[in-house]
Amino acid sequence: MRLIGLDPGLRNTGWGVIEMDGHALRHIADGTVHSDGDAPIATRLVQLYDGVLELIERWNPSEAAVEETFVNRNPESTLKLGLARGVVLLAPAKAGLLVSEYAPKRVKKSVVGTGSASKEQVQAMIATLLPGARIAGADAADALAVAVCHAHFIQARGAYGIEAGLATRKSAAGSNIQPGLQRAIAAALAREAGGAGS
Amino acid sequence: MRLIGLDPGLRNTGWGVIEMDGHALRHIADGTVHSDGDAPIATRLVQLYDGVLELIERWNPSEAAVEETFVNRNPESTLKLGLARGVVLLAPAKAGLLVSEYAPKRVKKSVVGTGSASKEQVQAMIATLLPGARIAGADAADALAVAVCHAHFIQARGAYGIEAGLATRKSAAGSNIQPGLQRAIAAALAREAGGAGS
Repeated sequence: MRLIGLDPGLRNTGWGVIEMDGHALRHIADGTVHSDGDAPIATRLVQLYDGVLELIERWNPSEAAVEETFVNRNPESTLKLGLARGVVLLAPAKAGLLVSEYAPKRVKKSVVGTGSASKEQVQAMIATLLPGARIAGADAADALAVAVCHAHFIQARGAYGIEAGLATRKSAAGSNIQPGLQRAIAAALAREAGGAGS
Repeated sequence: MRLIGLDPGLRNTGWGVIEMDGHALRHIADGTVHSDGDAPIATRLVQLYDGVLELIERWNPSEAAVEETFVNRNPESTLKLGLARGVVLLAPAKAGLLVSEYAPKRVKKSVVGTGSASKEQVQAMIATLLPGARIAGADAADALAVAVCHAHFIQARGAYGIEAGLATRKSAAGSNIQPGLQRAIAAALAREAGGAGS
């Protein structure tokens, strides 16, 4: 199963594609979609949207995972992140992919084993989990991390026999998973993350 | 020349289409594109995007004007507005329309004659400027107001012999009109707005 991870930003949107074969993960490709800072905002959004759609067409992933945008203290920055995230969530959904979102803490916990991991720890662990990958940069590494987090989630879901239909992932619209199921998934994820870090 | 105005919101995006024939403006249609509050965020963005694209296909405007989102104090609300605005700016740009943005104060000044006009004053003036229109609600009225503001801008541009290519409208990426030209446009707009209000 092939997954694409996306880390939205108006100037640079990181992306990473991995292949999941049971518990084995393999790096396929990664990079960054840029938008031209001098162009009008609508043009920049078209650049991001078309860029992400091209990646999906080229790498043919079956699911997408998007990092939940950090809510900045500066409203202007928050709004710009929102613009980019809107378009980056839209593109895979329009391409018919299931789109999941993960908070940065959850990504860190899943990849490194702790929600307070540093950026460097995440990058080091990504290099360990995806050996041989030459990663394009920090945004691409973050995108690979959210793809790995989603892979762990799918593996946990499989290991605990939770049906895909029930295990609706938390979206920005709020989680609609039953609390008991949510705890089971969280426990599975924690074990999974622990296993990945050992 | 037909124009579509858009007032982005994640739950409700107002829209309004007007026809501009020289200095005469005519109401064509208005309404609201809704997204389902219970759906995942990516699905809601698809609903908004498809809804706006359908309107463009149906009413065939040649330019779009989008209200610049109010930057809220609450980061969560700002981010949600950003998501919706990203998608609402993207749709007309993908359809090949020129997309302009106007700040709420500029819309009020253009429609009522003062940037501090109340919502009620804007709605009353829209009803006067577009006689016979039965307007669908507050979001649709705001969208018609931004369309009227854009029409005033185009009329001012025409009246002062400013070529379309030069009069690049202010986008969120910043204005790239020369200061002298900008003042000429502002003066023309002020006269235009004064004329509309008398």
